[in-house]
Amino acid sequence: MRVSRLFAPTLRETPAEAEIISHQLMLRAGFIRKAAGGIYSYLPLAWRVLKKIETIVREEMDAKGGQELAMPVIQPAEMWQETGRWSVYGEEMFRLKDRHNRNFCLGPTHEEMITTLVRGEVRSYRQLPLLLYQIQNKYRDEIRPRFGLMRGREFIMKDLYSFDRDEAGLDQSYKKMYDAYTRIFTRCGLTFRAVEADSGAIGGSGSHEFMVLAESGEAAISYCGSCDYAANVEKAELQPVQAQAEECLPLTEKATPGTKSIADVSQYLGVGPERTIKTLAYRTDTGSVVLALVRGDHEVNEIKLLNQVGCLQLDMANDEAIAGILQSHAGYIGPVGLDGSENVIIVADATVMNMYNAVCGANKRDLHYSNVNPSRDFKPAIIADIRLIQANDPCPRCGEPVKTARGIEVGQVFKLFTKYSTALQATFIGEDGKERPIVMGCYGVGVSRTMAAAVEQNYDQHGIIWPVPIAPYQAVVIPVSSKDEAQTAWAEKIYGELCAQGVEALLDDRNERPGVKFKDADLIGYPLKVTIGPKTISENLIEVKVRRTGETLYFSPEDYLEGIRELLAKL
Amino acid sequence: MRVSRLFAPTLRETPAEAEIISHQLMLRAGFIRKAAGGIYSYLPLAWRVLKKIETIVREEMDAKGGQELAMPVIQPAEMWQETGRWSVYGEEMFRLKDRHNRNFCLGPTHEEMITTLVRGEVRSYRQLPLLLYQIQNKYRDEIRPRFGLMRGREFIMKDLYSFDRDEAGLDQSYKKMYDAYTRIFTRCGLTFRAVEADSGAIGGSGSHEFMVLAESGEAAISYCGSCDYAANVEKAELQPVQAQAEECLPLTEKATPGTKSIADVSQYLGVGPERTIKTLAYRTDTGSVVLALVRGDHEVNEIKLLNQVGCLQLDMANDEAIAGILQSHAGYIGPVGLDGSENVIIVADATVMNMYNAVCGANKRDLHYSNVNPSRDFKPAIIADIRLIQANDPCPRCGEPVKTARGIEVGQVFKLFTKYSTALQATFIGEDGKERPIVMGCYGVGVSRTMAAAVEQNYDQHGIIWPVPIAPYQAVVIPVSSKDEAQTAWAEKIYGELCAQGVEALLDDRNERPGVKFKDADLIGYPLKVTIGPKTISENLIEVKVRRTGETLYFSPEDYLEGIRELLAKL
Repeated sequence: MRVSRLFAPTLRETPAEAEIISHQLMLRAGFIRKAAGGIYSYLPLAWRVLKKIETIVREEMDAKGGQELAMPVIQPAEMWQETGRWSVYGEEMFRLKDRHNRNFCLGPTHEEMITTLVRGEVRSYRQLPLLLYQIQNKYRDEIRPRFGLMRGREFIMKDLYSFDRDEAGLDQSYKKMYDAYTRIFTRCGLTFRAVEADSGAIGGSGSHEFMVLAESGEAAISYCGSCDYAANVEKAELQPVQAQAEECLPLTEKATPGTKSIADVSQYLGVGPERTIKTLAYRTDTGSVVLALVRGDHEVNEIKLLNQVGCLQLDMANDEAIAGILQSHAGYIGPVGLDGSENVIIVADATVMNMYNAVCGANKRDLHYSNVNPSRDFKPAIIADIRLIQANDPCPRCGEPVKTARGIEVGQVFKLFTKYSTALQATFIGEDGKERPIVMGCYGVGVSRTMAAAVEQNYDQHGIIWPVPIAPYQAVVIPVSSKDEAQTAWAEKIYGELCAQGVEALLDDRNERPGVKFKDADLIGYPLKVTIGPKTISENLIEVKVRRTGETLYFSPEDYLEGIRELLAKL
Repeated sequence: MRVSRLFAPTLRETPAEAEIISHQLMLRAGFIRKAAGGIYSYLPLAWRVLKKIETIVREEMDAKGGQELAMPVIQPAEMWQETGRWSVYGEEMFRLKDRHNRNFCLGPTHEEMITTLVRGEVRSYRQLPLLLYQIQNKYRDEIRPRFGLMRGREFIMKDLYSFDRDEAGLDQSYKKMYDAYTRIFTRCGLTFRAVEADSGAIGGSGSHEFMVLAESGEAAISYCGSCDYAANVEKAELQPVQAQAEECLPLTEKATPGTKSIADVSQYLGVGPERTIKTLAYRTDTGSVVLALVRGDHEVNEIKLLNQVGCLQLDMANDEAIAGILQSHAGYIGPVGLDGSENVIIVADATVMNMYNAVCGANKRDLHYSNVNPSRDFKPAIIADIRLIQANDPCPRCGEPVKTARGIEVGQVFKLFTKYSTALQATFIGEDGKERPIVMGCYGVGVSRTMAAAVEQNYDQHGIIWPVPIAPYQAVVIPVSSKDEAQTAWAEKIYGELCAQGVEALLDDRNERPGVKFKDADLIGYPLKVTIGPKTISENLIEVKVRRTGETLYFSPEDYLEGIRELLAKL
């Protein structure tokens, strides 16, 4: 392809709307254009990257016995009503009616559709296991679509569903997909980690997320440098911190004017934050108030809290709720005296129950209690692990201090067990002649998100640095002066030879200044720039510059092809 | 792939809902399953066929300089409002609102989207021409989705859009696409014809349709055996039939009781139908009545009529309209005396104006006129070619009698000229420094429809007969007895060798009777059945049966691979 013909309009300025680097660079480098909030056109360069990721995904799915099919994007409401998710999904689901007023949605996922499809066709254990997948557009009407492709409303997913006779079979299918995902992201040339994950609203238990490591990642992960433990911080389990027993002193009120934060009260009273109790108030979707207690230097893990309370959503309580329901005061909330109140659920992190003579809010303005002894002074409804893991917390597996990092979730594997097969009566007759629900799993790769994550992990101040396996083209041939006939003739020849040898090359044949051509090449991020300039003419040398390392190599016309092949193989 | 693992559930019975053969066979052979009216899942075998068609389409688009991209399926209303098609499209367009109550549609086509995209990026003639395409789901909410994939509500299309500086450029792009389409359907192994087509509601003029010939085709085409003329009958132009002049006799009323049809009145009065005038009454979308006149043995071409009248829709007038507006009687309508009436538009086929002393309805029950002389007795508002071409009509190009056939439209190429670029201000600065609208064309291939058309053209009483280039697999290896260890060992070996040699083979390893395995193979329609039976064991012979011809060949283990390769190449 000649750059003069390529539809890849680059921009000199960063569009104001773009907050994160992948969004900025993919707009500037002519990869994507916005059609509406969270809805993008993928221009030819992006489409080439996406096709490469798709091909890798497809090969790895097929290698594990996956069979590709394609289910409708537009799905009838009835099957979603059968599982109850027609109402659960809320505003995140795009809904529409056809001309006969029948209800449809645009599939945010396909558990209902595939289970309905399979239940009509699978009758015997002999037909299992079955691994079925598709690569297609998915739809989620996000409240705040943002970050370009990272959180779109229309996006490309690979979703595979496994169907097994029993949990042992599911374990095997899960393992296959875990291994396939490991290969996929390795082959894409990305640095990633598979982490234990909370299995969330989709149900079932047992899940891993595949995280591309990047500082801009929305997800925090913790991992151990000593063993192979890694988990989403949402999921990472913690043992309660053991404390030295102390004599329980009498509960005392302390005037603490203007000390709403742990840092303030800690400083005012001269006690370490690890001797204070942090109390956060949440409203549940049923109207109760949850008081979550953690040690002052710890943070609440809201996912763990949600799972403990068993509700779908928790929002921070506002001042009115704190005053009205709790009869307390924001910044001075504490559990003492509230453990008997109606509609108040106290959830204490297990570590809190090991504290002695601590400080906590006294539910009055400018007042705290000191010498709070949890086991003596209040009775939580729930005592559990509800805290967020932090750097240097002990590894849940080996006890060594953990590290933390940020990641972008690009894949997730889930055990669904029989959640959907039971709801939709997808059963089979076992070898023993008995009917039972099919045991399912589901496995997603965010294909368009993987492209964005690759950019978040691979860029510099000049632009994108594509990993070779998913680069839109591997090399661009640039004649320094487009008016120099010797250079352009050389460039044409080299371009022709590269293409003939199977290198995915572009020829920048535009009548532009060299600076423009080099800047565009760096912005778009081709792994190699092959420069034909005065040195080529005078010294018979072809310059090859490596985008990632900045390294410049010179080859003779006899060995440049071999050199480029070696560079591409090792990058 | 082993058939025991393949998700291709075959059915013994033909589902009652399926009216046409491709729908019946694709359901029975386990290619598709219905999710809702006009909305299907493509199971793995269908998906393999579709991927092969897509690959052929993609290669031919790329060969002509096409650049693949992907635009959103979900499109904001605003751009459709700019061209006016938001209202024109009516109920055929799937519409939805997002959570912020903004209007969107599911793209039935992408002229608005691509023109909006390109107008933001193309500024100079240097960036033209540009050929951009995508392969993706399209959505049309058909009133009566039917015939399986032939008229679906969610279907797969390739749509390419060309952008040129001028009409000469458009002609070149159009020619490229015409040639590419010819190669595509040839490579798919289909018998087809490119025919001149009406350019319909999409606008512009200059269009060809690519028709896969099949008796079940919805479209009628006429073609010449002597020259290369071929056209959709909707489009085929006709010269008026010349008639021998006669003396004009006086207009006479004739009692013709119970003769509502041309056949009846013709027989009753003892005159040939070619001496009668057929009058059809239509309501326009603006409330007028159109009287269309053709010779009694001719048929009205409603597309030509629509184009002449210049309205969007014509429906047959009902009895009330005929009595009320025309003051006439159904079955006895005629133009005499109605040519001055308000809201009545008489459109006469040019041949009618060459008739003498003809018979037509007298607008009263059981009464006709004879000796009607059109040029004397009434004055049409429009005289034009409005009749439908029939077999043996003279070829519009060479005059020889034409033939007719039926076809399935699988592709269409259109010149749009500046219809959309003008409406959406997609302009460029020409070499002369002047701003002008980009000259556009659009070019569609119905990918899923091509698969269905291939079945309509290639089947017998046993099932589908896939053309090799788009067959889901090329060969199936069948051990006659799955309990015979020698046979199954041979089958495994042959299957392994075929796969290793790049033949797309299946092994039917199911524990089924031979009849079931052969029936399934014929139903699904693999080009070759490789049978391992007693003859293989006793005589060292491998049987290869050709699905299309029924031919059976025997090969030795030394030469069967070469034999299969030759068969696949020549099929």
